[in-house]
Amino acid sequence: MQSVQIIGKDLPNIPWQEKPASCRGVIWRHSGNPILHWEPTPKSARIFNSAVVPYRGAFIGAFRADHKDGIPQIHLGRSADGLNWEIEDEEIHWVDEAGKPYQPNYAYDPRLVELDGRYYFTWCTDFGGAALGMGVTDDFHTFVRLENPFIPFNRNGVLFPHKVNGNYLLLSRPSDSGHTPFGDIFLSESPDLVYWGRHRRVMTKGGGWWQNVKIGAGAVPIETSEGWLLLYHGVSGTCNGFVYSFGAALLDLEQPSKVLYRSRDYLLTPEEPYETTGFVPNVVFPCATLQDAATGRIAIYYGCADTFVSVAYTTAEELVGWLKANSRLLPGDDVLYR
Amino acid sequence: MQSVQIIGKDLPNIPWQEKPASCRGVIWRHSGNPILHWEPTPKSARIFNSAVVPYRGAFIGAFRADHKDGIPQIHLGRSADGLNWEIEDEEIHWVDEAGKPYQPNYAYDPRLVELDGRYYFTWCTDFGGAALGMGVTDDFHTFVRLENPFIPFNRNGVLFPHKVNGNYLLLSRPSDSGHTPFGDIFLSESPDLVYWGRHRRVMTKGGGWWQNVKIGAGAVPIETSEGWLLLYHGVSGTCNGFVYSFGAALLDLEQPSKVLYRSRDYLLTPEEPYETTGFVPNVVFPCATLQDAATGRIAIYYGCADTFVSVAYTTAEELVGWLKANSRLLPGDDVLYR
Repeated sequence: MQSVQIIGKDLPNIPWQEKPASCRGVIWRHSGNPILHWEPTPKSARIFNSAVVPYRGAFIGAFRADHKDGIPQIHLGRSADGLNWEIEDEEIHWVDEAGKPYQPNYAYDPRLVELDGRYYFTWCTDFGGAALGMGVTDDFHTFVRLENPFIPFNRNGVLFPHKVNGNYLLLSRPSDSGHTPFGDIFLSESPDLVYWGRHRRVMTKGGGWWQNVKIGAGAVPIETSEGWLLLYHGVSGTCNGFVYSFGAALLDLEQPSKVLYRSRDYLLTPEEPYETTGFVPNVVFPCATLQDAATGRIAIYYGCADTFVSVAYTTAEELVGWLKANSRLLPGDDVLYR
Repeated sequence: MQSVQIIGKDLPNIPWQEKPASCRGVIWRHSGNPILHWEPTPKSARIFNSAVVPYRGAFIGAFRADHKDGIPQIHLGRSADGLNWEIEDEEIHWVDEAGKPYQPNYAYDPRLVELDGRYYFTWCTDFGGAALGMGVTDDFHTFVRLENPFIPFNRNGVLFPHKVNGNYLLLSRPSDSGHTPFGDIFLSESPDLVYWGRHRRVMTKGGGWWQNVKIGAGAVPIETSEGWLLLYHGVSGTCNGFVYSFGAALLDLEQPSKVLYRSRDYLLTPEEPYETTGFVPNVVFPCATLQDAATGRIAIYYGCADTFVSVAYTTAEELVGWLKANSRLLPGDDVLYR
């Protein structure tokens, strides 16, 4: 019996490798990383920062493809094992709620979540500046764009997998119009996924050097017996640019803008060649997880160097145990900050 | 009979001076400007960027007072004639909806509007960065802060004076955490003043040099037979800092995110000593109007050089006529941009 329970489905077929004896941490990389390489489709230069969900006994994903013309769009991918992916060369074509074409000028860093039996995408879209786009599909054939939840500027929008206290929840990271040199994580509520309010600040940049410049929500939060387990990225500034690592936090189940535990140290930082080298060196950027409630296994999908997709593994038990033993909150993290 | 009708109340007692023969424009300054000077209350260094409304046969206002410790707060003021103001030395003390103290760390650039028979304030507040604050009073004795409508970063929130197509409307200007070097005007809708969505971009910076860096809504829009008349500020960059002028736009009555006309030239730019000199030189910043439907007279309240409050005059007939004859739209202004 595990002391930390994942509240969710049993998914025995998610990618998995046992922890190597040499691993000193609580997270270990897939031995076949990266799972996606340069020029992964004819018109794509690089695929990274992408999201996956279980679908009809297999897996489906929303992939950020930076085309060879430099414009990012979201592509659909399918996989039986979560590791070998067939990715469509044509990007997703969005329509508005009346069925008319409504294609974003650009779309990047998608997240994907099953919510009320439908599949919701969030991404960074152009709305006279970087803002959150949102869309939904029931069948992965027709893709309907919904209202942008916020005015600019914002990135890293992550929906919770179900309502809490009657409202939908959306994490986001307010930013500016460029390579934002600041950023905290906020939480917003909505009764209908159209109108958003009751905003709270969840947690701030700061503390350890690795998350000193900005932070942003990563994967859809995992509901556990101990709280919502959130993987998030943290950014450090150096004389040669930003370094993206990632950490984890445990949020209160009933009041998720309240942080219970937060990783003092990074969980994973760019070390491997596919993380330290690429179009944007020194980036690891988690966007999705697959987890198996029966075993507590978690497979983490993360973008590498804005060029590759990789996978890492942990268990709810190991990760939450580590988090509790290595937590440092920042001022405001543990209150309902508004 | 005027060809442009103000849709609203008759207010024969608003401040007024006839247009001087020497005035070549469509707006003329009050001869007694500025109407508020340095150290206007014992603890205030400067009062500027402030808003007024008619109230019980006289006038009441929300004044931005920068205290001598440097912190801005909102103070209440009362006036019989709209020109001579009694301003309270103590700032407004806000409570939350449960009646508990909920004072902003700072509060600046208030706007004030009568809406459904209540009086709503919007201002720039600290929400882990500059964001919009919102509050309401029924009696100007108890002041209740409502939910912040948006996550940071944002300024220049201006509510419409009534619902349009069943929703409340709020103009705002997304910004960043500093002296934002960019900024467009957006419009958001709400069924309840708590949850906001269906965002549209109204108009962008650009065009004439005077509005090339950023723009922001000024006064509560005036409903006229020709459209919503919006005074807005436009900012120009120079080698010695920003220059704030103001212009006007006419927005579609039914779809106010659609711009019908927009001033090619500035309407007013810093020229007078109280506009070119002060704590922040070269700023004119409109925040409110009083208007008389019977005569079409409009009195504009504007902040000067982050130090003074001044008044200028025009009529709906003159201003709208000039606007139509001197309009230049920018790309996206005349569509429902989302």
